[in-house]
Amino acid sequence: MSYSKNPLVGIIMGSSSDSKVMHSAAIALDEFGIKHEDQIVSAHRTPTRLPDYAKHAEKQGFKVIIAGAGGSAHLPGMIASHTTIPVIGVPIMVYNDKINSDKFKFSAFGGLDALLSISEMPTGSPVVTVGVNKAANAGLYAIKILANEFPELKTKLKKHKEMQHKSVLKESDEMKKLGLVRFADKKLKK
Amino acid sequence: MSYSKNPLVGIIMGSSSDSKVMHSAAIALDEFGIKHEDQIVSAHRTPTRLPDYAKHAEKQGFKVIIAGAGGSAHLPGMIASHTTIPVIGVPIMVYNDKINSDKFKFSAFGGLDALLSISEMPTGSPVVTVGVNKAANAGLYAIKILANEFPELKTKLKKHKEMQHKSVLKESDEMKKLGLVRFADKKLKK
Amino acid sequence: MSYSKNPLVGIIMGSSSDSKVMHSAAIALDEFGIKHEDQIVSAHRTPTRLPDYAKHAEKQGFKVIIAGAGGSAHLPGMIASHTTIPVIGVPIMVYNDKINSDKFKFSAFGGLDALLSISEMPTGSPVVTVGVNKAANAGLYAIKILANEFPELKTKLKKHKEMQHKSVLKESDEMKKLGLVRFADKKLKK
Amino acid sequence: MSYSKNPLVGIIMGSSSDSKVMHSAAIALDEFGIKHEDQIVSAHRTPTRLPDYAKHAEKQGFKVIIAGAGGSAHLPGMIASHTTIPVIGVPIMVYNDKINSDKFKFSAFGGLDALLSISEMPTGSPVVTVGVNKAANAGLYAIKILANEFPELKTKLKKHKEMQHKSVLKESDEMKKLGLVRFADKKLKK
Amino acid sequence: MSYSKNPLVGIIMGSSSDSKVMHSAAIALDEFGIKHEDQIVSAHRTPTRLPDYAKHAEKQGFKVIIAGAGGSAHLPGMIASHTTIPVIGVPIMVYNDKINSDKFKFSAFGGLDALLSISEMPTGSPVVTVGVNKAANAGLYAIKILANEFPELKTKLKKHKEMQHKSVLKESDEMKKLGLVRFADKKLKK
Amino acid sequence: MSYSKNPLVGIIMGSSSDSKVMHSAAIALDEFGIKHEDQIVSAHRTPTRLPDYAKHAEKQGFKVIIAGAGGSAHLPGMIASHTTIPVIGVPIMVYNDKINSDKFKFSAFGGLDALLSISEMPTGSPVVTVGVNKAANAGLYAIKILANEFPELKTKLKKHKEMQHKSVLKESDEMKKLGLVRFADKKLKK
Amino acid sequence: MSYSKNPLVGIIMGSSSDSKVMHSAAIALDEFGIKHEDQIVSAHRTPTRLPDYAKHAEKQGFKVIIAGAGGSAHLPGMIASHTTIPVIGVPIMVYNDKINSDKFKFSAFGGLDALLSISEMPTGSPVVTVGVNKAANAGLYAIKILANEFPELKTKLKKHKEMQHKSVLKESDEMKKLGLVRFADKKLKK
Amino acid sequence: MSYSKNPLVGIIMGSSSDSKVMHSAAIALDEFGIKHEDQIVSAHRTPTRLPDYAKHAEKQGFKVIIAGAGGSAHLPGMIASHTTIPVIGVPIMVYNDKINSDKFKFSAFGGLDALLSISEMPTGSPVVTVGVNKAANAGLYAIKILANEFPELKTKLKKHKEMQHKSVLKESDEMKKLGLVRFADKKLKK
Repeated sequence: MSYSKNPLVGIIMGSSSDSKVMHSAAIALDEFGIKHEDQIVSAHRTPTRLPDYAKHAEKQGFKVIIAGAGGSAHLPGMIASHTTIPVIGVPIMVYNDKINSDKFKFSAFGGLDALLSISEMPTGSPVVTVGVNKAANAGLYAIKILANEFPELKTKLKKHKEMQHKSVLKESDEMKKLGLVRFADKKLKK
Repeated sequence: MSYSKNPLVGIIMGSSSDSKVMHSAAIALDEFGIKHEDQIVSAHRTPTRLPDYAKHAEKQGFKVIIAGAGGSAHLPGMIASHTTIPVIGVPIMVYNDKINSDKFKFSAFGGLDALLSISEMPTGSPVVTVGVNKAANAGLYAIKILANEFPELKTKLKKHKEMQHKSVLKESDEMKKLGLVRFADKKLKK
Repeated sequence: MSYSKNPLVGIIMGSSSDSKVMHSAAIALDEFGIKHEDQIVSAHRTPTRLPDYAKHAEKQGFKVIIAGAGGSAHLPGMIASHTTIPVIGVPIMVYNDKINSDKFKFSAFGGLDALLSISEMPTGSPVVTVGVNKAANAGLYAIKILANEFPELKTKLKKHKEMQHKSVLKESDEMKKLGLVRFADKKLKK
Repeated sequence: MSYSKNPLVGIIMGSSSDSKVMHSAAIALDEFGIKHEDQIVSAHRTPTRLPDYAKHAEKQGFKVIIAGAGGSAHLPGMIASHTTIPVIGVPIMVYNDKINSDKFKFSAFGGLDALLSISEMPTGSPVVTVGVNKAANAGLYAIKILANEFPELKTKLKKHKEMQHKSVLKESDEMKKLGLVRFADKKLKK
Repeated sequence: MSYSKNPLVGIIMGSSSDSKVMHSAAIALDEFGIKHEDQIVSAHRTPTRLPDYAKHAEKQGFKVIIAGAGGSAHLPGMIASHTTIPVIGVPIMVYNDKINSDKFKFSAFGGLDALLSISEMPTGSPVVTVGVNKAANAGLYAIKILANEFPELKTKLKKHKEMQHKSVLKESDEMKKLGLVRFADKKLKK
Repeated sequence: MSYSKNPLVGIIMGSSSDSKVMHSAAIALDEFGIKHEDQIVSAHRTPTRLPDYAKHAEKQGFKVIIAGAGGSAHLPGMIASHTTIPVIGVPIMVYNDKINSDKFKFSAFGGLDALLSISEMPTGSPVVTVGVNKAANAGLYAIKILANEFPELKTKLKKHKEMQHKSVLKESDEMKKLGLVRFADKKLKK
Repeated sequence: MSYSKNPLVGIIMGSSSDSKVMHSAAIALDEFGIKHEDQIVSAHRTPTRLPDYAKHAEKQGFKVIIAGAGGSAHLPGMIASHTTIPVIGVPIMVYNDKINSDKFKFSAFGGLDALLSISEMPTGSPVVTVGVNKAANAGLYAIKILANEFPELKTKLKKHKEMQHKSVLKESDEMKKLGLVRFADKKLKK
Repeated sequence: MSYSKNPLVGIIMGSSSDSKVMHSAAIALDEFGIKHEDQIVSAHRTPTRLPDYAKHAEKQGFKVIIAGAGGSAHLPGMIASHTTIPVIGVPIMVYNDKINSDKFKFSAFGGLDALLSISEMPTGSPVVTVGVNKAANAGLYAIKILANEFPELKTKLKKHKEMQHKSVLKESDEMKKLGLVRFADKKLKK
């Protein structure tokens, strides 16, 4: 089942390494049968693409844009300034700087830099953000927006909630029966 | 001009003192001719109202809920857990604790507590947030969502952007002519 | 030895992965012979369970509820809003998001998000919190509360303190004799 | 109505200026008819009083100690280390340093220093904390603990909740009727 | 004395209220006889002006751009992405949001949001920043850059340093003679 | 009574406005009869004075240097690198930037910038710090160091402690008698 | 191709372990054919070298100094105080403290200490900073400064931008074709 | 060579796991031939030892106490409140909580909790602190204090500085000769 021939959601991100986080947004949309188009648009490396992408998005009839970016994270706010399509920002904390030979890299500010750069837009230029690396939630929020026009998505979202509910109940029952200590032992062994 | 007989947006907040910030959301919606219903729903003082408000919102056909809260700021996330309507959170930093006789009160964490409590929802339970005290942006974002269904809102949003653009240009021209020092002197005298 | 046929403490947490931290609360209660019931109650995935769990807790006669949650961490405050039973919150920093293929995941805010979401409850809606991941302390604090009614727990708590005291003295004597450098060498070799 | 001849709660604080925040705890206890004894015990200026106060508290039969402190805020943790009585910490942000002649002073870390110093106690030494300056909540939490032994306090707490609920409903109805903008105007005029 | 007929430095800022901070950059340039052109360019309210301003700056032969912005603070990075002219960012903490009727407003994050949004640009897109509200230093740094081409600016900068040095010595001598307590008394009386 | 003909302590600070905080160090030393010499030494405006001041301090036989600085706060660490005399740093949060016409200025980072710049010296270059604006404590700590050589200072320090102890006891007795609410009322009326 | 017989840029850092981060600045300069001289100058271990290095830099005709430092990070500001050459600071977060036997060390403040110590210089003493560990950007910014005098560098910078643009486009096209999920799978497999 | 028969410095820490950090203080003192006594004194697990240790330290004639602690880190301040001996605090970030089966543990607040708990002592109760985990600097600072009484320590400290200076020069010369890129390659290979 599909809601339109063309994609309804545009997913963009600032760099190819952000795809490691952003793919969760795509998976959420796929699960609900919503077509999306995925691109890399860098606010800094391809600044002239910003207005072009905005025009492309309006022409394609995208109803939501999901934009992920880390560090300075200007992409969500800049795209939103070029279009009336609602933009959902995803602050990204990913470890793609090559500091030294160690394999474990950490971003300096734990994503706080990206979160604030996306949320603290000036009055008059609205962008919204989900939590750091919460691309899946950005996907689900896009579905909530689309459900205003496609009522069958409302039904699907309710089923999704019911399944979450049941799955928590099942785990809770297991914990109640086993007791917390043994339940945790099983978890830790995995 | 009005888009429906019933309100399209529900505005809620955790306490009456939050109204000092949240009224900017109402002003934005009013400016675009969008009806809204305004209530106080406290996640902690009226927890049993949460599911009732959610049902009320669905029955009324709200297409967006704007929820403002400070400190622990559980309201946006909790309402979102009870409904499929998209919720926009507004982290509030307002000064309503009576610490002592001084008139100038400050919240302890500058709104960071509320911002993180709204944004860092677990995967599967999406809420989005605007910046601290950015209720006006929450209003405008709601309009962007509604514009998916009401194309004349798209037109209005574009005019709004053009007016912003012109107003900046006018001020810029004044600054260019006066020079920054004299321009700032005028600003500071106000 | 047991203080009642029914559990005196309810332990709840927002997700099964929190059990890796919360099991320390259970171990502390077990050590003092206190029965507890352990469940998963998600403020966001099972919001309708919140009032039901609160009623269940009151019916069972729980005298303390220990509630662990990470990120937005709404669970302790929401449960406390539904009951008069004292709730002890445990802010959790656990690494259960699947960002990428690396095995070492880190929460974005080091537990500060959860700590503030639990502690900064509005006036009139009290919850208390222990430190980040300090589930064992939540267990011991529950015992301090129970000791108001079960004086033999006071005696046990005093013995527990004496054993801590002796164990520190023993290690201190070893350090004094060996000298810090050799003592540390032994520690580091472990 | 009173629950015992002797005080049931000991309120202590690190300095006389903390009384500006801590009096809210006393007011909450007074409202519920609970006797309390109030003292200043400075962890740093009167360190030898710490064990003496602990003995005094146990002899008096205090069932809860509420301890407020700012900055380094060692008092709650140090008292808790000397007794088995549950201690509720109140992190205080008060402005008592005489920096210069300005009348508006601000603590350097917004209470985060006190909050962490109280919450981050080592495993085995439990203290709990409420939010920054939330002394009223410390008082209410003490009542929740006492309600385990004095069931009429449970009844009073439930009435207290109901009154909160009604008071929110009343304000909500006023806001719904007036609309948010006019409601806020009224608030801002006060 | 002037170094060219045309301005050598472009000063831009995101909003007219930023002029209260940015005028210090203009004052520093004026003091050294350097012409500058001052404009308002909003990354979000006038996004299409970004490439135009960049072209204008290159055509005019600006050798440095000083760009001030608060909150999300995308302006310095976005302009830098459109030009090879070195851009100096100024993170601004100014109090221009109309929260309520109080006269004293505070930005939520003390300028940290703007500082990180300017500094944490991705590898390949360089911007530099001075400290929060340090517009005067941005002006002086621009002069250091220009001094590479205009050696008489080197001489002036050295004189500026010598005057600073002398002025500190004079105050130091006064403090040494009066003693710190009396010196501070004089300062506080002012 | 005086401990030497020459000053035993050198007090320095980065700017004359720091004197509003640093005078508390002088007052503490004066109270204990310890001579000190007070100067302004700016790490940035008078960098060539750093080695000269260090030589001067060694020649004068200073036994402690107290160095106050705000923002970047390089002074304590830089002086310490030029001498073997122990340096006590005082991180200063003072409001001397002229942002605009408002009378109430705030430093951007609450003194955290200065605190970290003083404390986080590399291994091999020791400096110590007191808390933000705690110049009085820097004075008292200098006295503790001097008391190693002047035993009568030990006696004075003990008397100082006893007086603190008595003064707290007196206030505590008043609070116990009046009750916290009335005690706080008296405090708030002041 | 080379722009002068002598180096045009001086690269300095506080410790040899900083070279793991700073080498990216050298690589950027090398790529553009710009000679640089690389040294270790420790503000704390070699304080007397600071004025000597400054004189050396002026004598050599360096047009930019790139200075990297971590923790207290006094080096960039101190060198800038001794010269009129523009200094670009690089805040470094490197893991060179030997805490224990684990191989993965983390700096305590994620580079925030170094960032603020470099940026928050007092008015009158300008230093600029790039983001934490962004040594490559410091190199590119130095090239932007040099391009004021060497127009062929402007051309090279533009080509560099075009190549970035093309490389993003190519990756974007691949993502669009494969879809985000498969694109990310490929990335994660690497 | 030794400066007294008895130890001159007391090293204490809150837990045996702190020895992994604190041994660097002992190594520094050993290098300068200074005897020290090493013990574990837990503010929370052995609170009654605090006054006893203080008396012991005074009786032994300790001239400095070095006190390391993590988390709440009450030890340095509490010991300082019991004695006139100068106390140097060491904020510790060590990973001794057993969260789960992973081998890499991280403290929640990067040592900021311990740093503030040690530095933000109230006026009248001085403690000083070095940086997080900088136990070696605490040792060297103790030597600076002792050098007031033992002039040969001044000489040794100067030699220590000269050696640091030479060692930096040697590495700098190597870097200058090899160039930064090859120098870093050598470092990274280690």
